[in-house]
Amino acid sequence: MRTLTVALPGREYDILIGTGLLNEAGERCRAVLPRAKKLFVVTDSNVAPLYLHRLIPGLEAAGFETAVCEVPAGESSKCAARLEELWENMMDFGLTRTDAVVALGGGVVGDLAGFAAATVLRGVPYVQIPTTLLSQVDSSVGGKVAVDLRAGKNLAGAFHQPRLVLMDPQVLDTLPDAVFADGMAEVVKYGCIRDADFFRFLEDRPSRPALMAEIEHILHTCCDIKRRVVEADERDHGERMLLNFGHTLGHAYELAGHYETWSHGQAVAAGMCAAARLGVRLGATPAGTPERIEGLLAALGLPTAIPCTPAEYGAAIGRDKKGEGEDISLILLERLGRAAAHKMPKAALLEELK
Amino acid sequence: MRTLTVALPGREYDILIGTGLLNEAGERCRAVLPRAKKLFVVTDSNVAPLYLHRLIPGLEAAGFETAVCEVPAGESSKCAARLEELWENMMDFGLTRTDAVVALGGGVVGDLAGFAAATVLRGVPYVQIPTTLLSQVDSSVGGKVAVDLRAGKNLAGAFHQPRLVLMDPQVLDTLPDAVFADGMAEVVKYGCIRDADFFRFLEDRPSRPALMAEIEHILHTCCDIKRRVVEADERDHGERMLLNFGHTLGHAYELAGHYETWSHGQAVAAGMCAAARLGVRLGATPAGTPERIEGLLAALGLPTAIPCTPAEYGAAIGRDKKGEGEDISLILLERLGRAAAHKMPKAALLEELK
Repeated sequence: MRTLTVALPGREYDILIGTGLLNEAGERCRAVLPRAKKLFVVTDSNVAPLYLHRLIPGLEAAGFETAVCEVPAGESSKCAARLEELWENMMDFGLTRTDAVVALGGGVVGDLAGFAAATVLRGVPYVQIPTTLLSQVDSSVGGKVAVDLRAGKNLAGAFHQPRLVLMDPQVLDTLPDAVFADGMAEVVKYGCIRDADFFRFLEDRPSRPALMAEIEHILHTCCDIKRRVVEADERDHGERMLLNFGHTLGHAYELAGHYETWSHGQAVAAGMCAAARLGVRLGATPAGTPERIEGLLAALGLPTAIPCTPAEYGAAIGRDKKGEGEDISLILLERLGRAAAHKMPKAALLEELK
Repeated sequence: MRTLTVALPGREYDILIGTGLLNEAGERCRAVLPRAKKLFVVTDSNVAPLYLHRLIPGLEAAGFETAVCEVPAGESSKCAARLEELWENMMDFGLTRTDAVVALGGGVVGDLAGFAAATVLRGVPYVQIPTTLLSQVDSSVGGKVAVDLRAGKNLAGAFHQPRLVLMDPQVLDTLPDAVFADGMAEVVKYGCIRDADFFRFLEDRPSRPALMAEIEHILHTCCDIKRRVVEADERDHGERMLLNFGHTLGHAYELAGHYETWSHGQAVAAGMCAAARLGVRLGATPAGTPERIEGLLAALGLPTAIPCTPAEYGAAIGRDKKGEGEDISLILLERLGRAAAHKMPKAALLEELK
């Protein structure tokens, strides 16, 4: 097992990475929640039949009373109506501030359950047990929780750090290939923005079995990069924006496909390629960089370009949370392994994207 | 004009108290929001016809683009559905993180708009312009924002400090007597928990005209007490609980009346009297204290007792946010002017209340 400690002022928590950890969830939760009596478990209709029976007995053996709320799998559950449903169910269960919420699932479950935990009773502890590669390397660490609005994803939310993150790579075995590839987009992102050696490590292993053979190392590397970025900038005013490499344009692609045609990972993959090509055109990124990123992502089964109209770019960029009035901070690569924010007028970016 | 500064780590904000301040809202907002372009104003159907026309031109003269969302007056607007509506409207308006939300109204508007501001884009600044006595001395200061759930009031929310609180006592002139009295319940509370001299000051002026003659002093005294308590305990883990004097039982009375029969102030008034009597029975509060509190509240037109069944007490106390498992922290008076938390089993409290 590998352990990472995220050290934020007044709140420190561990990310545990290890095969079989799901079976130890009860004792691991008890260690960080010594006084809790009740755990409110949120999961989805894909994950519940696979892993709930492995989680609940362990939690109960550790002395927790549990209630389960299963939401339909898919992004559409990350909405205000489900949030309200969780709030009401948590109160009906009799949750108090010394109890906790457990999120068992991917990013949708983690973001939704985390936002409910951040706000019910003005905040109760929560534990993340991410079950997809994407949520293991991205959304389960760092405390960003949210629901989607009509205008876009994650537009209503909070910063609420988990009390514990439990990652069992074994659960990845049941992921469809496309969903595994989705997570790899974020894995590649960490190489792009912070670690050229890790990027090469991935280039040498462009297949799922080869990656799974090194999965604990991969999860550890990604979460360690994210940990350092979050520690430096919990509230997303500076360095944390670097994690958004590929995401501003990725949001446009998700919007263009109505959040159905393209998955988050696919959109981010194409967004990273577009940002790399844009960086070269703007003189910020060395020539040859886009080709390496495109090569790796294509080998992993991810798209390197997605069609998008100027109107769709405009809609996404106008509403980007990073947008401050007329300007936008776009993340570009100064080289493979180093990202930087480039502030530019939204109008100029839209012109470039035509 | 009187100014109080609430000094919290990394976030400091002023409470301005002065007759006519509503006319200066534009320049006052501009001073604390130098880069904001848009202000999203939330108000209600009672306040909009009275004061919106005095607010908006000033904001626009200070260079802000404004949008107004008017919710129906009353507690029922403090719900998840209205919260979602605000989120969506804020995005449709094109609000960014450098813009801000303005709450013009009483506690319902302040809590609802504040919670929306706390969570939209994971947090944008907001300005409180409280228009009731209750919200001026209580909910507009301290950053507690929330919506109600089926199980009770304020059960989903956040801590989000305003950027500025603007109090114009002139707006109190349009309050019905019953609503003014409602606010006086919280004013009396500050005397009970922290300032026996202030309690006597109020005993000497048990009429609305006499109180209005000293209103800036009254607002300043109450907000200064609240400021000190919030500075010591922003997150409500200790001293801030003292502000809950009268509120645990008050919540039971509100619940017993389905939030319709009894206003918040009426419920808190009866709750303070009941807590004072309970304190005497438990040996924590000196004899004679309940009678003085009852005398002042009755003179102000507030109830000193409200009928409530054991089942209703149980429902309210079981779900109190301060509840930690089987115990509850009840605020009792050690003497007039000094409150302390008494931790006791919920079952014992319910037995006492029979």
